[in-house]
Amino acid sequence: MNKEEGREKMSENEDTEDAYDVENVFAKILRGELRCDKVCENEGALAFRDVSPRAPVHVLVIPKASVKTWDAWLELGLEEREYFLTLVREVIEVEGLKKGGYRVVMNAGRDGCQEVPHFHMHILGGRVLGKILP
Amino acid sequence: MNKEEGREKMSENEDTEDAYDVENVFAKILRGELRCDKVCENEGALAFRDVSPRAPVHVLVIPKASVKTWDAWLELGLEEREYFLTLVREVIEVEGLKKGGYRVVMNAGRDGCQEVPHFHMHILGGRVLGKILP
Repeated sequence: MNKEEGREKMSENEDTEDAYDVENVFAKILRGELRCDKVCENEGALAFRDVSPRAPVHVLVIPKASVKTWDAWLELGLEEREYFLTLVREVIEVEGLKKGGYRVVMNAGRDGCQEVPHFHMHILGGRVLGKILP
Repeated sequence: MNKEEGREKMSENEDTEDAYDVENVFAKILRGELRCDKVCENEGALAFRDVSPRAPVHVLVIPKASVKTWDAWLELGLEEREYFLTLVREVIEVEGLKKGGYRVVMNAGRDGCQEVPHFHMHILGGRVLGKILP
């Protein structure tokens, strides 16, 4: 996101609470302007495969609401959060991850090394994933 | 968890759906048998500092319900899940993580390298955390 463009909605939490960038790639996927390798979808969320998978299973789940971070997702209404969590459950099920195990990662802002400024949950599995941080 | 002891509740998802081990360290913390460095707490969840922190901020949030994994947490009733998510929001707030960013990690089973068989969410921050997997 262009730092200068994001200054309209300034706050004390300026790094993660800049205005939502409607041109981020996940917003484009949600608008149908970019393709994705879809796993499943419901009214409030979409799950698709990461284009640069770090494990045999690497699925991203995103809400359809325009939120940048996990903490912004936590502020959404119950219905939108339930759509999201229902889809997460479905991904774990259809990808067969319960038996062997899996890891869930969510990055926020600079320290989290978040790459796309639309909240996304990484669901990783299919191999032993090692330490929780590099 | 002792593999042999966990066989009572066998299922096709045997690796993550073994019976809950009431002697795991987080169960002992919840029963007051072990101390923890508490950050905050509510009726349904407890947050405390990891004893082996991997970052300047490394807080674990656990539900008080006896569930082993994120997928088991997803099957809990709404009230219990809301207590948990409310406490997660509080941790992000009181630890001042919104500005600089943070990472959330949840490990399940063998591939996730889950160390304690009571579901826990790692909330990490205070430094740039690098790649999402080692």
